[in-house]
Amino acid sequence: MPLPSSLQTGTGSLAVTQQFRVGFEGYREKRLDDAVTRMVQRLDKKTGLAIGPAVAKSPAEATLVIRCARASEPVQSVAEDESYGLTVTSNGATLTAPDPLGVLRGLETVLQLVESVTGGFAIPAVTIEDHPRFAWRGLLIDVSRHFMPIDTIRRNLDGMAAVKMNVLHWHLSDDQGFRVESKLFPKLHQDGSDSKFYTQEEVRGIIEYARERGIRVVPEFDVPGHTSSWLVAYPKLATDPNDLKVGRNFGIYDLCMDPSYEPVYEFLDQFIGEMAKLFPDEYFHIGGDEVNGKQWAASPRIKDFELSHNMPTGKEGNIAIHRYFNERMLKILKKHGKKMEGWDEILNPDLPKDIVIQSWRGQKSLSDAARQGFTGILSSGYYLDHMEKASTHYAVDPLAKESADLSEGQKKLILGGESCMWGEYVSPENIDGRIWPRNAVIAERLWSPASVGDRADMYRRMERISRELEYTGLLHMVNYRMMVERLAGSGAVAPVKTLADVAEAGSLGVRARAHKYLTDEPFNRLPDTVLPESEVARHFTALLAGGASHVKDPAVAAQVRQWLVLWRDNDAKLEPVIARSPLLTGAQAASQTLTDVAKIGLEALDAIEGGRRLDAAWAARTKTRLTAAARPVAEVRIGVVPGIRMLADMASK
Amino acid sequence: MPLPSSLQTGTGSLAVTQQFRVGFEGYREKRLDDAVTRMVQRLDKKTGLAIGPAVAKSPAEATLVIRCARASEPVQSVAEDESYGLTVTSNGATLTAPDPLGVLRGLETVLQLVESVTGGFAIPAVTIEDHPRFAWRGLLIDVSRHFMPIDTIRRNLDGMAAVKMNVLHWHLSDDQGFRVESKLFPKLHQDGSDSKFYTQEEVRGIIEYARERGIRVVPEFDVPGHTSSWLVAYPKLATDPNDLKVGRNFGIYDLCMDPSYEPVYEFLDQFIGEMAKLFPDEYFHIGGDEVNGKQWAASPRIKDFELSHNMPTGKEGNIAIHRYFNERMLKILKKHGKKMEGWDEILNPDLPKDIVIQSWRGQKSLSDAARQGFTGILSSGYYLDHMEKASTHYAVDPLAKESADLSEGQKKLILGGESCMWGEYVSPENIDGRIWPRNAVIAERLWSPASVGDRADMYRRMERISRELEYTGLLHMVNYRMMVERLAGSGAVAPVKTLADVAEAGSLGVRARAHKYLTDEPFNRLPDTVLPESEVARHFTALLAGGASHVKDPAVAAQVRQWLVLWRDNDAKLEPVIARSPLLTGAQAASQTLTDVAKIGLEALDAIEGGRRLDAAWAARTKTRLTAAARPVAEVRIGVVPGIRMLADMASK
Repeated sequence: MPLPSSLQTGTGSLAVTQQFRVGFEGYREKRLDDAVTRMVQRLDKKTGLAIGPAVAKSPAEATLVIRCARASEPVQSVAEDESYGLTVTSNGATLTAPDPLGVLRGLETVLQLVESVTGGFAIPAVTIEDHPRFAWRGLLIDVSRHFMPIDTIRRNLDGMAAVKMNVLHWHLSDDQGFRVESKLFPKLHQDGSDSKFYTQEEVRGIIEYARERGIRVVPEFDVPGHTSSWLVAYPKLATDPNDLKVGRNFGIYDLCMDPSYEPVYEFLDQFIGEMAKLFPDEYFHIGGDEVNGKQWAASPRIKDFELSHNMPTGKEGNIAIHRYFNERMLKILKKHGKKMEGWDEILNPDLPKDIVIQSWRGQKSLSDAARQGFTGILSSGYYLDHMEKASTHYAVDPLAKESADLSEGQKKLILGGESCMWGEYVSPENIDGRIWPRNAVIAERLWSPASVGDRADMYRRMERISRELEYTGLLHMVNYRMMVERLAGSGAVAPVKTLADVAEAGSLGVRARAHKYLTDEPFNRLPDTVLPESEVARHFTALLAGGASHVKDPAVAAQVRQWLVLWRDNDAKLEPVIARSPLLTGAQAASQTLTDVAKIGLEALDAIEGGRRLDAAWAARTKTRLTAAARPVAEVRIGVVPGIRMLADMASK
Repeated sequence: MPLPSSLQTGTGSLAVTQQFRVGFEGYREKRLDDAVTRMVQRLDKKTGLAIGPAVAKSPAEATLVIRCARASEPVQSVAEDESYGLTVTSNGATLTAPDPLGVLRGLETVLQLVESVTGGFAIPAVTIEDHPRFAWRGLLIDVSRHFMPIDTIRRNLDGMAAVKMNVLHWHLSDDQGFRVESKLFPKLHQDGSDSKFYTQEEVRGIIEYARERGIRVVPEFDVPGHTSSWLVAYPKLATDPNDLKVGRNFGIYDLCMDPSYEPVYEFLDQFIGEMAKLFPDEYFHIGGDEVNGKQWAASPRIKDFELSHNMPTGKEGNIAIHRYFNERMLKILKKHGKKMEGWDEILNPDLPKDIVIQSWRGQKSLSDAARQGFTGILSSGYYLDHMEKASTHYAVDPLAKESADLSEGQKKLILGGESCMWGEYVSPENIDGRIWPRNAVIAERLWSPASVGDRADMYRRMERISRELEYTGLLHMVNYRMMVERLAGSGAVAPVKTLADVAEAGSLGVRARAHKYLTDEPFNRLPDTVLPESEVARHFTALLAGGASHVKDPAVAAQVRQWLVLWRDNDAKLEPVIARSPLLTGAQAASQTLTDVAKIGLEALDAIEGGRRLDAAWAARTKTRLTAAARPVAEVRIGVVPGIRMLADMASK
């Protein structure tokens, strides 16, 4: 995962033993040597073979020969060639790529191909020609709402590389925090970060780390809204300098920079000049989203400015003044050698066409942009904080829906997409479980041919890569287990795990409606622990997919019953644990819901097995109960409710 | 764990919230600040509270006040004061210590005391006065047989600090590898290490890391035997310069340095001079064990030397020439400001009394040494590679057995003990599971009063600290799970886990008898994965401890039956997984044994529940089968066999 664009299987396989060695022909650089070292370390974790240093003395001795044509561009570009070819026979493997990027991508494929066979490990004989469908395949990590330490960023870069993603969109400033050291304007990180920021040296380290893995780093400094953390440090930038404070809760703030005030541009010119040097990527993201314009409409200074510039005033002037701001930003970025990127709110026909529009509001704004000749990327449908199922994200295609009717030329303007890990409800502890493995599925959507779309096959491969992603150092499984154990406190872990395994994390909206969270509140409870999509629930539903005749099969019925009994009996076991563990406060409702729906499931299963049909009254009563049970409870969803509904339908129809 | 020397409980408890803060009174140094930071990081992991930076602006605002009297010694000494006092009331906590070491120890106690209570977390009101029973509480890590990366050493130092151990005995050279960079004799690490060694900078880093945690680092360079890796690099040191190679298998080698050859001492003088500067500890371990003397007895040069020094010759001369060597070593160590430490073979009444004898051959050699006035430490009984139960190590007391009759003065010469993690059968991946949590039990034996010894209480606390040790970064639980999943390959994990959870790793002897291992063989199979002591087996046995009348209780019988049925049915589930996973080759015999003994258990349980007595023929047949099943199979032990035997006895007696 992602599946390659073309794959032909051959006969036989190439044994992978402790004598696995890699040789180089053609262009070679330290980055490729390091990539081979990392690949073999992960191969060691996958197989336990203890292969150790694996570079062969000569290509003749190598199991895998790497043939690279030329050096990379000094700064990785959007257009840089990531294609590679891989040929594996029982005698050896050859990985060929025009550019080192292709080698990096191909090594990930090699690693994923290694499988256990009788007597050992092997790579099946294959011929692969592979290249990405989209050139821009990114992950946004918001480190402003909650700061993420360097280690967290690093291991997620490793995960991205494993699924061939190539852009880290680093959302570095927002109302809740300014996360980069500025030497020109040190109050930004001093006053705007609660001491949680990256030094410039750390930033350079991350950029280097990313480049080694073939990943660009695009910084986002969101302006003119989402800037409370800037304004606290430099109140002169504010439209309204009253009540400035770093954000402690979430949502859209009124606070905003003043686009009518010339010193704002002087400041941004210097600041962007500094950051443009720090971040080598050709793109620079200026945000531009969610300006509610309340302060602008109320500002006499802005009104004067609008009048003197023949703009409408008040609320009607907001669009014009924002456009003005963006045009000034564009000039500043150009001056410092950067192309502009921004959220879809910045779209304006007068802007040059080489800016990148990132669509978060829907596929329509992306296709609109393309029709106007703008390049763009899709994020709508890829919001990881919405806690959707992997299959939901999988079904979102940057070239589908409103974009399906675009001309071929317009389609080329759609460069790809980015998944977004917004940081309102994540900690360094649970962020991996929010991003992975679902992000691998989005990575596949952006890399593999559009025709790749089988859902069951996707899930089978997602479960497999989830384990392999652990070998990169990601903690999505490790921390889930530790958090479940912590929930149990000194009580029994098993009933906590039974509930957690079928519970699914509530979305941004569910969380926000349940409780007014502040930035420094701990994320140590059930909704923070459980994963966005329950594997147990998915497997349970899959058991039922064959319908009543399948469920009647005694072997199937026994499995279904085993689950249902486990869940029915769980609340009684969990109750004493909840009573003693402060972290499970509030989890009781979720636990009771699970037991309730399991009882419904058992009633249905009894009827199905007994060949009885449950009557309309039962069906109606059950429908009501299941509709209630499908709603979020204790900020989680009970993931088995849809499966229970299938059973209830079978029993009553 | 370890339990303090004196603890009085009070009433109420001190709430631990996100506002938990630590204040300093009296002496303060960076090391203490760093220790507080680490403590709070682990508190965050334990509670998920996200306390963050926790140093209070003034002691008045602090939840926990630290009162330290003075600075540490520049190099931590054996005699340095580790005592501390801790008072916790519902209003606050005070940690008092004469020396920073006591603060470090006390902070670990504070962390362990935090527990979940209704509504949150709290530390119960207590008054603790605590000091170690023994001044020397170490862990030996052998990095020669298998190299352990810096990270592995670091996380084990964190684990040691958590259980108040204070010596890392770093076994740095042996037949299979020389692991430290020598600038004077670079061929040592170049030719003797397969490129796996610590640079001097890395060594200094580890020493600093250890010092921050109140841990001394005692290096061991084992001479004159166990030196193949030196002799390959510098053949002139060898008694017999033929057939020199770095060891690839395990056991006692004939290769040995030549104690009759003066250049050996010139070499060792320079080498120890270099290492004495690198390692600041006052002790320097010269090994001295397991010289079989074959080459000495056969060497004409040694014979000449012995004759000219009025020593016996041939085999009879070996003791004398080894003594001579040790006396020369002593002079060299003295010259470089070090006290000598060695294994019990070096004991010789003529040596000065301030050397430390480390007893591996039994408690008798330790008491003999004490009677002669030597200081000593115990390792016999604390060999972690013997894969004994924690309770076995727990029962070993440095002042018991032959040492029980020593005078008070002689007893004072016994400084403590060291657990030993010899490296024949460990990898960086499974070493944590070999050391932890059993090492915590040895740490308690060496710290807590001799009267502390309740086995059930020890296991209860061991299971708890095992989880807390994860918060230090130890991977004993994480890697176990990953290795179990790897064993399963693409097959079902559950039956692999069922077997692995009741299997116990074979000891050094079991492994060596089963297969002639070489140093570079992978440790990725069942015996490498499973832990030394099965928690499931222990809990199963505990269920049966009440005898037949207890087992007849329907609730107990149901639990026992659930386990037995799981195990009886497991082989059928595991068989297809074994067939597909190369790493499970050979595990079939273990799986079948588990199913076999589970069947016996079910026969017995049926009889007990039915109030029937199984006859003598059954008992005899069963005894034979269980005796066979108790033997190692596939290099593991089936840990539930003793429990099944208890059931069989109940059913037939």
